[in-house]
Amino acid sequence: MEYPSKLIEDAVNEVSKLPGIGKKTALRLVLHLVKENENRTLALTESLNKLRTNIKFCKTCFNISDEDECSICRSHRRDKSVLCIVEDCNDVMAIENTSQYIGVYHVLGGVISPMNGIGPSELKIEQLVSRLTQKIEVKEVILALSPTMEGDTTAFYINRKLKDLNLKVTSISRGVSVGSDLEYADEITLGRSITGRVLFD
Amino acid sequence: MEYPSKLIEDAVNEVSKLPGIGKKTALRLVLHLVKENENRTLALTESLNKLRTNIKFCKTCFNISDEDECSICRSHRRDKSVLCIVEDCNDVMAIENTSQYIGVYHVLGGVISPMNGIGPSELKIEQLVSRLTQKIEVKEVILALSPTMEGDTTAFYINRKLKDLNLKVTSISRGVSVGSDLEYADEITLGRSITGRVLFD
Repeated sequence: MEYPSKLIEDAVNEVSKLPGIGKKTALRLVLHLVKENENRTLALTESLNKLRTNIKFCKTCFNISDEDECSICRSHRRDKSVLCIVEDCNDVMAIENTSQYIGVYHVLGGVISPMNGIGPSELKIEQLVSRLTQKIEVKEVILALSPTMEGDTTAFYINRKLKDLNLKVTSISRGVSVGSDLEYADEITLGRSITGRVLFD
Repeated sequence: MEYPSKLIEDAVNEVSKLPGIGKKTALRLVLHLVKENENRTLALTESLNKLRTNIKFCKTCFNISDEDECSICRSHRRDKSVLCIVEDCNDVMAIENTSQYIGVYHVLGGVISPMNGIGPSELKIEQLVSRLTQKIEVKEVILALSPTMEGDTTAFYINRKLKDLNLKVTSISRGVSVGSDLEYADEITLGRSITGRVLFD
């Protein structure tokens, strides 16, 4: 597509590098900013710059945090004997939103994915092992990774790494979604939910 | 939703003000930027700031332009006797992409929409009238506005404004989409395409 201005073209190119945003959406967003007050664009770019420059990660669990240690790790009301391993910060947010978990977290920062050039060393797995070796208060580790090939690979890898630490390693349960119809569940999920059936209580 | 950091919250709030982007998508985009190199965010925000500060509009047709007058208005190969009235810069791009039009444009910058507080004075209609009064070379005006209530209202308004100027005023044709099945066309479009039928050639 030909753009009426080099400025538009540059902006569209940058915006379309964001995930899930193609050239058409990028153009729509950029033209929206052009139409609106200049202060809107300034507020947007300032908030993004500020975020990227000042963002901190918790030194214990590697979750995003405003302080050196995040509010979950600092809290005395959290159960420090249970540690939930997640891929990303949004997984922490998702689990926190359920209000069903009172333990602490460890954010890996990704999953093992040779296709994308991400090996175990790119993730916070070494830090996890040393954290678990130093802090003997942790009794159970919950693997809460995505039910994908990459997630499963990462779970296997971590499980093997933690073998000698004498911990209870669990995984979040997989099965049919609550509230959904059985006929809409895919075969693999449904199959797994049968082989992995639990006692009715 | 609770965010792990005020910086994230601010950025999500700003990004979700963009059209078609809700809080969830905004969070995904913001976390993507956090994960990526800092230079990516800087490149993005710089291109947006540059765009918003330096953007110019053609003094003749009000299209986005790098110069005082846009490349279409400056071109000697364009037919200056035909003027196409569009709502926005992306409509110019869309029509240019068809390669079917060699006339010039006039960008209104919106359509009359009382619901959104946009009256005729917010648009470049006065400028259109004075442009057509001064430049007697224009023989035909094409109304290429969206087939919505707002677009139709604007078209009616402009048509009345141009009545005394002794111009040929046309509108882009409306009917069933080329390449689509008749059964999928909505009733109003199909009805219009029958009442507005043209001679078969």
